[in-house]
Amino acid sequence: MSRFGEATAVEKVADGRYAAVLDEGFGFAEALNGGYLMAVLGRAAVDASPHEHPLSTAANFLRVAKPGPAEILVDVRKAGRTAATARVSLVQNDQALVEALITTGTLDAASEPDWAGAPPTPELPPIDECTGFPRVEERSRGFADRVHMRFDPVTMGWMDGRPSGRPEVRAWFELADGYPADAYSLALAVDALPPVALNLGAKGWAPTVELTWHMRAVPTPGPLAVYGDARLLSGGWFDEEVEVWDTAGRLVAQSRQIARVGRTS
Amino acid sequence: MSRFGEATAVEKVADGRYAAVLDEGFGFAEALNGGYLMAVLGRAAVDASPHEHPLSTAANFLRVAKPGPAEILVDVRKAGRTAATARVSLVQNDQALVEALITTGTLDAASEPDWAGAPPTPELPPIDECTGFPRVEERSRGFADRVHMRFDPVTMGWMDGRPSGRPEVRAWFELADGYPADAYSLALAVDALPPVALNLGAKGWAPTVELTWHMRAVPTPGPLAVYGDARLLSGGWFDEEVEVWDTAGRLVAQSRQIARVGRTS
Repeated sequence: MSRFGEATAVEKVADGRYAAVLDEGFGFAEALNGGYLMAVLGRAAVDASPHEHPLSTAANFLRVAKPGPAEILVDVRKAGRTAATARVSLVQNDQALVEALITTGTLDAASEPDWAGAPPTPELPPIDECTGFPRVEERSRGFADRVHMRFDPVTMGWMDGRPSGRPEVRAWFELADGYPADAYSLALAVDALPPVALNLGAKGWAPTVELTWHMRAVPTPGPLAVYGDARLLSGGWFDEEVEVWDTAGRLVAQSRQIARVGRTS
Repeated sequence: MSRFGEATAVEKVADGRYAAVLDEGFGFAEALNGGYLMAVLGRAAVDASPHEHPLSTAANFLRVAKPGPAEILVDVRKAGRTAATARVSLVQNDQALVEALITTGTLDAASEPDWAGAPPTPELPPIDECTGFPRVEERSRGFADRVHMRFDPVTMGWMDGRPSGRPEVRAWFELADGYPADAYSLALAVDALPPVALNLGAKGWAPTVELTWHMRAVPTPGPLAVYGDARLLSGGWFDEEVEVWDTAGRLVAQSRQIARVGRTS
């Protein structure tokens, strides 16, 4: 089993109760990655459902999750033929860290879109024209070692003190351990980019308050193209929209999060 | 008090329990409008919070709500200085109809955006160049009488059997009773458009499964410009994104919903 597979595994303890061991490798110094936590919650929701995929996940991040044992509570609120919906909570030390609503369903990998919008522009350059984290900070090494990301250089000026002024970050995304693109790596991908607000001059960690993502298709194998942008930074809040496209040129996931602007650390 | 104000009023029954009377005027034949229900839930969440605005609402629509008495359960999961988050449920006859996660906070009406994206294109034409519902079906008259909407004619071809082929609907929005633009009319506005999938040839009612919306600014008085579009229709599911802009030219709300494609009725 791959490290991401192990890190997101859940064990059923009782009806509606699952155990997991959160892996420090999927975090930065301040917190475990929200996308990683959503992948863990998604596995529990799917296990408690007759359906195969976490189609829609709305997650509120209340408190920082720590590496180590955690409990996932799944309260099925409706189990329908097309979709099932559950309240899902991530708990450590009797405190809820993440509260989520997850709708599961089953997507047909062979189905063709009835209508699809055009990919985002500008297009992500080919992988060999993209850059890695040129200066990985010591504290972020865990995540950067687990997730191979190659960034469109024009969206990474903030790293050298030259933010582009446009809240955009684009990158190729793959698990370093060869774990294939699937529902759970999509959960990680929609929250894997550096905050787009960094390109507006914001500094430091930008804690996500709410993130909703939808799985739209079963991804083909290979690297995922991840496009992030935003619409408004105001009153200390900003939104970040992410689209994930697979190598077959399909929109496979879309998300929006609302986050607090980071404070200079 | 205005009809919308009365229709969304909640009465505290006990800590975390509120009573409401759902108004048939804010529904179509099949169901009460989801935005109307989110406005009711938002009032209960704000009442149970130290903050003033429903900043982020993620709602799952499980079962059709009926006009008449309903109960709202508010379970505060975190009450922070900047934001508070609650699980909020709409219940009738001991059945959960809507499950939501609502984060409340307080937006400063006087604050200026630090950065704002451009308004959507094409722009919504002036109100007097827009059209009403040219053929209001009998069953939809309630909602159409309560909410004054004036549509960009190029986005309403589906009404005459000439869907545009682009999943876009644009309209001016105001409560008919003079209720001013505020957090609760924004909740209504983000779910007030006819489904954008109608312009792709879909027919009939398109039940929303999940809708997340964020209040981004306190709207100025006057009609709201509501822009709806979509990215993908596939496997019986489509997304619908809505932006709401006020008369001061500010983005005041943004939403995405995931819905089932309507079946021909």
